[in-house]
Amino acid sequence: MLYKNLSINEEGHLLFAGHDTVALAKQFGTPAMLIDEDRIRTRCRTYMDAMARYLPAGSRPLYASKALSIKRLYEIMKEEGMGIDVVSPGELYTAVKAGYPMENAFFHGNSKTDFDIRFAIEHGIGWFVCDNADELDAIDAIAGEKGICQKLLLRLSPGIDPHTHEKISTGRVDCKFGVAIETGQAEELILRAAGKKNVALCGYHCHIGSQIFDHVPFCDAAIIMLKFMAEMERKHGIHADILNLGGGMAVPYTAADGSIDYAANIAAIGRLLGEQCAALGMEKPVILMEPGRSIVADAGITLYDVVSIKEIPGFKNFVAVDGGMSDNPRYALYQAEYTILPASRMNDEADFLCTVAGRCCESGDLIQEDVMLPKMRRGDLLAVLTTGAYNYSMASNYNRIPRPPVVMVNKDDVYVAVRRETLDDLMNCE
Amino acid sequence: MLYKNLSINEEGHLLFAGHDTVALAKQFGTPAMLIDEDRIRTRCRTYMDAMARYLPAGSRPLYASKALSIKRLYEIMKEEGMGIDVVSPGELYTAVKAGYPMENAFFHGNSKTDFDIRFAIEHGIGWFVCDNADELDAIDAIAGEKGICQKLLLRLSPGIDPHTHEKISTGRVDCKFGVAIETGQAEELILRAAGKKNVALCGYHCHIGSQIFDHVPFCDAAIIMLKFMAEMERKHGIHADILNLGGGMAVPYTAADGSIDYAANIAAIGRLLGEQCAALGMEKPVILMEPGRSIVADAGITLYDVVSIKEIPGFKNFVAVDGGMSDNPRYALYQAEYTILPASRMNDEADFLCTVAGRCCESGDLIQEDVMLPKMRRGDLLAVLTTGAYNYSMASNYNRIPRPPVVMVNKDDVYVAVRRETLDDLMNCE
Repeated sequence: MLYKNLSINEEGHLLFAGHDTVALAKQFGTPAMLIDEDRIRTRCRTYMDAMARYLPAGSRPLYASKALSIKRLYEIMKEEGMGIDVVSPGELYTAVKAGYPMENAFFHGNSKTDFDIRFAIEHGIGWFVCDNADELDAIDAIAGEKGICQKLLLRLSPGIDPHTHEKISTGRVDCKFGVAIETGQAEELILRAAGKKNVALCGYHCHIGSQIFDHVPFCDAAIIMLKFMAEMERKHGIHADILNLGGGMAVPYTAADGSIDYAANIAAIGRLLGEQCAALGMEKPVILMEPGRSIVADAGITLYDVVSIKEIPGFKNFVAVDGGMSDNPRYALYQAEYTILPASRMNDEADFLCTVAGRCCESGDLIQEDVMLPKMRRGDLLAVLTTGAYNYSMASNYNRIPRPPVVMVNKDDVYVAVRRETLDDLMNCE
Repeated sequence: MLYKNLSINEEGHLLFAGHDTVALAKQFGTPAMLIDEDRIRTRCRTYMDAMARYLPAGSRPLYASKALSIKRLYEIMKEEGMGIDVVSPGELYTAVKAGYPMENAFFHGNSKTDFDIRFAIEHGIGWFVCDNADELDAIDAIAGEKGICQKLLLRLSPGIDPHTHEKISTGRVDCKFGVAIETGQAEELILRAAGKKNVALCGYHCHIGSQIFDHVPFCDAAIIMLKFMAEMERKHGIHADILNLGGGMAVPYTAADGSIDYAANIAAIGRLLGEQCAALGMEKPVILMEPGRSIVADAGITLYDVVSIKEIPGFKNFVAVDGGMSDNPRYALYQAEYTILPASRMNDEADFLCTVAGRCCESGDLIQEDVMLPKMRRGDLLAVLTTGAYNYSMASNYNRIPRPPVVMVNKDDVYVAVRRETLDDLMNCE
């Protein structure tokens, strides 16, 4: 099985964190998203421990909460001592409602409005990750109004393409995020920030992409960023304590992806940091990282009921389920890969090649193509793995379909973190 | 200008249905979706009148409500005498709440659960468009429980690719919808339906795709369907009164798209119908059509504030706005084309080539590439045209961004059909 928290009982049912998925589907209905709380906590500790061990004092992970932004996750992050990043007033507000200490929160995004900036400052946000000159001017002006000096990092583009999917690679120069080192615009933004009265420039941020399996792209980015930090200090006397290397560590979606050793990657980054800073004659900066997907993706699975089976001789087979792109748009958006298991019939022979289709009225609403399953029947249960990140957070009400519940499971307990939407909820704003 | 309901006032502001978009943005905030009610009613009447004039008695358009499924739209459809199609209990429930007469509603979809079927029958749905054998068995069983005979059409695939985008072309044999004529499975399903006690087989449905500009693909589909209807009558004595040709009539998204004459297309379908039925020696069936996009797409525009401008010398320019794939995922999903206007500066020279980017933390969150605008400044207003269909209905809370309001405008009035979500709304289920 792809993950250690999956097993099979004697009835041939898939167990998730020790719980029978068939029983959970009965209890909570389908579609349902299940999240393994223990697995989230374990992964947080992997990051916390490795960053404490291999990186300079003060280094720490920030949960990139856009991956799954619900109140319960911010509570867990608080308990685990994780920092967070938020990208909107909505994420920030959810964190506030969870009692998350906002001094540990970083506000990201390429398009922050005056409202956003004011809202974040009024809620005591710790840091802005400032994306551009327009935003810098606005933060300075609003911080001035409020009589504070706002801490910030500047988002820079190191010009690295980590060879992942184009749509989710964000370290390149021609990307909507940040300002590029190679065009000289990063230096301009730094000088502009240094000239502001109401902001404190504390460091730099870069994010090179997603689904990166080893340390090499992070090290490549760090080399460019450290050299640039040393240059800014030498040329302009502008010192920065913090280097935020962004997110992007992978999770395996299928067996072909192999595994990833987060601690080993962090150790390798730590070694590189030591070497480079020694060579550059600079103090080692505090390192921040922003895992999102790698905190929650493989802690989640989605359960669907099979609704119809269609065999088209000479063409293909379809298995349609009771959810789709409304709860998981990642296949429609990126042709994302997933592993799908026949949760109610794990011991049956998987000899039926099919496309698992969603229920939305759109041909592109598929969950996955070329899946091997037992020959399905209406009422069978399917489990789509690795849906903890960018599923619930991207869910819509397309086709006026209510969003599923988020059910948390751990060894001792099962509880609803987010209830299923009702039909009346859909009309809440009308 | 792309549409007749757009004009410019002496301040250089874009007017939409006679209303100053700058004033509307101030009143309702941004992002905001505006819908021109009169334009929707006019388009409904174009369909109603042309179908009454050129097609057999009883022929009529059904609004494919997945394009924009809000209570106010169902009220308008009721007032205009339009039929509707719905694809989920959520759409059906919204129509019920709008007082829409359910005997004029058709229930679509490739994956109807027992709950869906029961819910629809309990609410007095007029017709099912039955997609497959599993569903047929379930409808028959539930109709039996309820002691009714349920009217239905069967969804067939005529095997036509209308040469539109692969993801939205749905008449092909290897598609998740319906059953194919060419594989013999359509005939099997018809015989299965004819053998059921609690369903009344009244006709057939096909849907060949989207963004079809002329009558030819519809006529091609009609030729195949009519021949098949005649064959079923001859071979099995199974008569059907209704042929539903589905949706798919285009709207122009850009000037390059040219225009479309809906009435002329319907007239051409009417002529073809007369010829074919005469040749086949069959009575002309009642024709249904399912316009969705062509009822609402070009009745809608979205207003955004410009938040930041980024010029990357030697690469490209970005203009970031205060919405994005959370309110309009169509570029991210299909690289959909849109026309974008500088609503607050219509008379300024458009000499700035740029990519209009959204605010979501994702590189693929763009609204459109290669747009010519005046050199933008923070606070300028942009209008994205043709956003009435598949924007609000596909909107999500990705990045925890509240969905925009839907503001209806007509000559005399401006009113909120759907209010903006609040931050508290985002936590409604937690």
